[in-house]
Amino acid sequence: MSLLDYFKISKVSSASLAKERLQILVAHERSSKNQPSYLPQLQKELLAVIQKYVNVSQDAISVSFEQDDDQETLELNIVLPDHQAKAV
Amino acid sequence: MSLLDYFKISKVSSASLAKERLQILVAHERSSKNQPSYLPQLQKELLAVIQKYVNVSQDAISVSFEQDDDQETLELNIVLPDHQAKAV
Repeated sequence: MSLLDYFKISKVSSASLAKERLQILVAHERSSKNQPSYLPQLQKELLAVIQKYVNVSQDAISVSFEQDDDQETLELNIVLPDHQAKAV
Repeated sequence: MSLLDYFKISKVSSASLAKERLQILVAHERSSKNQPSYLPQLQKELLAVIQKYVNVSQDAISVSFEQDDDQETLELNIVLPDHQAKAV
């Protein structure tokens, strides 16, 4: 199963909510533990980019970050206001 | 199964390659077809942000974009050079 398939499955289960959503996942698979993590800083810049495209407050964005020995995953879930996408 | 669980599964299957990777998924679940898609433009900005953090050429980045009635998914897969993360 590809990641794209997974998104399709999750779409069906949440379709009844009829909310517009934007989800961003960043997974960093590290070959060594001895590296600095740049995902927290990257997260700030990703949010800044997203906010150029959609009108959302910080309240509408939930962020989770998981880290283990060789994998870090940053997940941003954004509930969008209806038809509020900015024209760019 | 959460998306984070999915990343953990995919990690195991690709661990033998021992390459450092960064994967970014952006899924936009739209409530209406009559909206402009901003993911192609967003993709360019995300790549610009990523390249501030890691030294990668365009060749190391593969991008796929899928679109159906109410879901768009942008997937960026980046193979990182070993220990080349920039200090920021």
